[in-house]
Amino acid sequence: MPAYATNMRMKFPIVALVLEIITIILFAVFVVYDDGKSDDHHDKASNKSDHKEPMPMDLYPMFQDVHVMIFIGFGFLMTFLKRYGFSSVGINLLLAAFGLQWGLLMQGFWHMTDGKIKISIFKLINADFSTATVLISFGAVLGKTSPVQLLIMTILEITIFSINEHLVAEVFKANDVGASMIIHAYGAYFGLAVARVLYRPSLKNGHDNEGSVYHSDMFAMIGTVFLWMFWPSFNSAIAEPGYAQLTAVINTYLSLAACVLSAYAVSSLVEHKGKLDMVHIQNATLAGGVAVGTCADMNIGPFGAMLIGFVAGIVSTLGFKYLTPILSSHLRIQDTCGVHNLHGMPGILGGLAGIVAVALGKKEGGSVAMQAAALASSLGFALFGGAITGLIMKLPFWGQPPDQNCYDDSLYWEVPAEEEENEESLAHADHSKNKAEV
Amino acid sequence: MPAYATNMRMKFPIVALVLEIITIILFAVFVVYDDGKSDDHHDKASNKSDHKEPMPMDLYPMFQDVHVMIFIGFGFLMTFLKRYGFSSVGINLLLAAFGLQWGLLMQGFWHMTDGKIKISIFKLINADFSTATVLISFGAVLGKTSPVQLLIMTILEITIFSINEHLVAEVFKANDVGASMIIHAYGAYFGLAVARVLYRPSLKNGHDNEGSVYHSDMFAMIGTVFLWMFWPSFNSAIAEPGYAQLTAVINTYLSLAACVLSAYAVSSLVEHKGKLDMVHIQNATLAGGVAVGTCADMNIGPFGAMLIGFVAGIVSTLGFKYLTPILSSHLRIQDTCGVHNLHGMPGILGGLAGIVAVALGKKEGGSVAMQAAALASSLGFALFGGAITGLIMKLPFWGQPPDQNCYDDSLYWEVPAEEEENEESLAHADHSKNKAEV
Amino acid sequence: MPAYATNMRMKFPIVALVLEIITIILFAVFVVYDDGKSDDHHDKASNKSDHKEPMPMDLYPMFQDVHVMIFIGFGFLMTFLKRYGFSSVGINLLLAAFGLQWGLLMQGFWHMTDGKIKISIFKLINADFSTATVLISFGAVLGKTSPVQLLIMTILEITIFSINEHLVAEVFKANDVGASMIIHAYGAYFGLAVARVLYRPSLKNGHDNEGSVYHSDMFAMIGTVFLWMFWPSFNSAIAEPGYAQLTAVINTYLSLAACVLSAYAVSSLVEHKGKLDMVHIQNATLAGGVAVGTCADMNIGPFGAMLIGFVAGIVSTLGFKYLTPILSSHLRIQDTCGVHNLHGMPGILGGLAGIVAVALGKKEGGSVAMQAAALASSLGFALFGGAITGLIMKLPFWGQPPDQNCYDDSLYWEVPAEEEENEESLAHADHSKNKAEV
Repeated sequence: MPAYATNMRMKFPIVALVLEIITIILFAVFVVYDDGKSDDHHDKASNKSDHKEPMPMDLYPMFQDVHVMIFIGFGFLMTFLKRYGFSSVGINLLLAAFGLQWGLLMQGFWHMTDGKIKISIFKLINADFSTATVLISFGAVLGKTSPVQLLIMTILEITIFSINEHLVAEVFKANDVGASMIIHAYGAYFGLAVARVLYRPSLKNGHDNEGSVYHSDMFAMIGTVFLWMFWPSFNSAIAEPGYAQLTAVINTYLSLAACVLSAYAVSSLVEHKGKLDMVHIQNATLAGGVAVGTCADMNIGPFGAMLIGFVAGIVSTLGFKYLTPILSSHLRIQDTCGVHNLHGMPGILGGLAGIVAVALGKKEGGSVAMQAAALASSLGFALFGGAITGLIMKLPFWGQPPDQNCYDDSLYWEVPAEEEENEESLAHADHSKNKAEV
Repeated sequence: MPAYATNMRMKFPIVALVLEIITIILFAVFVVYDDGKSDDHHDKASNKSDHKEPMPMDLYPMFQDVHVMIFIGFGFLMTFLKRYGFSSVGINLLLAAFGLQWGLLMQGFWHMTDGKIKISIFKLINADFSTATVLISFGAVLGKTSPVQLLIMTILEITIFSINEHLVAEVFKANDVGASMIIHAYGAYFGLAVARVLYRPSLKNGHDNEGSVYHSDMFAMIGTVFLWMFWPSFNSAIAEPGYAQLTAVINTYLSLAACVLSAYAVSSLVEHKGKLDMVHIQNATLAGGVAVGTCADMNIGPFGAMLIGFVAGIVSTLGFKYLTPILSSHLRIQDTCGVHNLHGMPGILGGLAGIVAVALGKKEGGSVAMQAAALASSLGFALFGGAITGLIMKLPFWGQPPDQNCYDDSLYWEVPAEEEENEESLAHADHSKNKAEV
Repeated sequence: MPAYATNMRMKFPIVALVLEIITIILFAVFVVYDDGKSDDHHDKASNKSDHKEPMPMDLYPMFQDVHVMIFIGFGFLMTFLKRYGFSSVGINLLLAAFGLQWGLLMQGFWHMTDGKIKISIFKLINADFSTATVLISFGAVLGKTSPVQLLIMTILEITIFSINEHLVAEVFKANDVGASMIIHAYGAYFGLAVARVLYRPSLKNGHDNEGSVYHSDMFAMIGTVFLWMFWPSFNSAIAEPGYAQLTAVINTYLSLAACVLSAYAVSSLVEHKGKLDMVHIQNATLAGGVAVGTCADMNIGPFGAMLIGFVAGIVSTLGFKYLTPILSSHLRIQDTCGVHNLHGMPGILGGLAGIVAVALGKKEGGSVAMQAAALASSLGFALFGGAITGLIMKLPFWGQPPDQNCYDDSLYWEVPAEEEENEESLAHADHSKNKAEV
């Protein structure tokens, strides 16, 4: 074990510093501030029907909501593990901070103006989005990967994401305003493919550290609730300003509300003595936000959004209860946070709902074939990209934690001494102290 | 005890699923997106003096602030109990998610356009408001009620709220922009009436679980601080856009600031050795937001707002210290969170301040009689509605927790095993300590 | 010890109530709502190039972001100490609530209209800013001062701040949009001067309470992440609306992102076995926001902002590792939170970056001499003002905690009894359990 931990001392700082320096150089060459003369049609959508000139800061409050989801939402959602809170929120910050820079570059290369990437609030939102894919995949491999491995995953996943995103948005011209397909399904199956490659046989019967304590579950609820509240911003941030954006907000708000009821009901139904399970509540209550993403800005009706959320809550909770164990035992996919249940299946559900909605004419100019192509493309890039990325991450010199140190902050973090004593041997500690005092 | 817990397995899922399905059907029949052609005068208030066309998303940042208050604010404020954090934040999410749907319907029925309820951001804010009443009442009965009982309370309380709200706003045309009367006083006295009906004699000397631990008090402060920060949004969200809204923000900001000083001062004054009490700090610092609600958008002057907050902080802190024990012992009202001190008395204070402000001509077109009628109506509906609701909740088949399991998550939640060990063996610890002391 | 604690019973309530009453009287005499006829040029900047009339609530979402930084950000950042969480978040609320009122007065006196201070959202933001200086200084003396001492510091520090702020903005007409100099450097060196005067020799080898536990570090990360996310709002809130504001957002966002990578890298590089240190992660990741403050709205280019952040992350982390111990041992400055590393050095770095940027012509109308004067003035007022304030705080009747009770909530707060038992007698518990098992 020390060998692994010690390795970090050079590897991690060098990788982090080199990546950042390269990134700064690329920014120096390619990136400028938006000056309002960009021709990015999304960005400067003049919404004539609403008689309002777009302003550079119009999207800023929405951006900040998304920002909170990325850094507080994802970060704290993963703090449920009893000994892995520093890594969950801390590595989340690291990956997102690097990912948003990389995302600005990768997505920017597809939308250059005069050879330059012009940054606007719209671009910052998309950069945050691109990091969301990584944070979803992070959930699948949480506790079993080193910071260096995860930085490598960040680079590759965002690069591939931006290719798929370009294909879906610009070539297929498919609708995916809330990104059920290109973020949630993509991020989940990418992460699951990585987890499959990094399968650890010795963890198949679980691990002592792989559980929560009372207060770690409380910290995780901070993540859950912030994600839940701001999901309407996530799904509407890049919608057309005006009533389309309002529709995206309302659909997401209602889908999430309906999802809470079905997730709670099914959690109680499937659990011992009808008790609620924190894992379900922390995650499945959010599935409605994922599943309504693709058709959030479509005219599916408030009750349509609620139906989607209602089904998503059921599917997600059942997935945690019955599918996650099967994935682990039969498919050798160890999905720490159950991203398959929160992002994978609800993401596909969202893609399918989008196909149905377009087929029913709920979106002007939508095409069923292109929606299906977008879903297939997202899944294909995810599985293929994730497998390749997993193989690269599996190379033996990235400081991967040994099995016995999985889900344990103390491998990569200085953990307060007192706390370790507390948990491991408070008895012995104080016992010996008492003896000493005697 | 197992009998109670097991009961949840069927009752809770069935109630939750049936309620949600009925709600979705009602939405399918009655609810559509706002298309900007609504004639709701509040909603589309064209504020001519400010020369600005209202846009569908104008209120969205305010809505999100209110949303944070409902889900993080109320949810975490109640996590102060040492063994009831899952329920506090989890059941808060459940009730609010159902309540906002129910609130959209109940309030919407009073404001239909062409037989339809048109949802706008304004309506979402009001739906959040309607759930606030339930969450306040939840505080009064926290730890002593089952999820099924609380869902029933949600339905009834919001239904009655929307009647009173219609009466106050449309019939009396009274001013209550920050809802001191129709939300805070109503929610508090409704909850107290329920608590009175559900009185448990065996808890009159307290309960082992009815206290905080260090970190549960820290979690509660998350709720307190988010409520404190975003209260200006709560009190100004539905004010007339422009300077009236600015006035509501400033009054609330200043009232809360002054309230902090008086709450801290009085807490120190009445406590053992001048120490501050977390219960006071978590709650009484917010009383200024409640008490300035009714006259938040009136021209009471910055110092007027501060005076209201200053008095509210004193009244609320003294209430926690001296009145809550009397309510429990003499009136048989066990008010777990002390909502009488945070919402009840400050809500009445707010209503009275509104009467005085209108009498002093601080609000154009205000009527003292109508303000008084609004306060009386809110209290009357609260006490009567709460008593009826309490009687329905008292029916013996809703899975109410037995006395010895009050304030204990493990009745309705899977609680991490390790934590239980901790807590179970602590008993031994203290036991042995007691022995040692003997 | 009891003598100190008991003293609070009269001193603290009297000081708090008298201060609040005086403040309310001053507000009654001097403060009115803004009515849009203010001639404050900052406030009502008509941004002609963007063709948009400013509205009274335009800055409100930015204000709320800053508000969250002040109350959640600073408050929770300081909760890392294991036994000082109540004070960190609780006294933070007290000082900020009083400070914003005092700041409105002190800053307002320099910007009166017809003998009145007119409050707008812009003024609320500036009031929050003025409290930030106090909260920074609070970090330097955290755990070693009484609430009464800190209220005195609040009054003096804000009063002196508003003099320096006026000098820098109106006389020197220097640029400091994100306040690297007038808030961060000022607040840090003011606090360090106070800490120097209040030096406690007996704490030179540390204190038992001066460390974190696992969950206190998690609470602190709530503060860190909210500060990190909303820092773009802090640095852009009072920038010229439009593209200058966008530039400030982008520069801050990128500086912070680059700073994370360098802070993590250096933390791993300097720590035992390459492990990350929570103190660095909680603090040094924010140094990029401080250091880019002065030139946030200047045309330094996205890569320029990243360079500043990159350097700030390195400097700050190295400061925590190597400089803080030297400050304590050689300069007799005990800096509890390491504000010198987060606000002091990065603040100076920000001032220097501003000088360079102005020299390179990145800001129209900027003057190198005036930038340098602003930095010197901020440092001078801080050191001199802090020293005087420290001397006043050192007077022996403000209830300063004795050395052995430093960093301990239980001196000024009712702390849950059970928790104390927990910590004191867990040993007995497990001991007895072990015996039983034997």
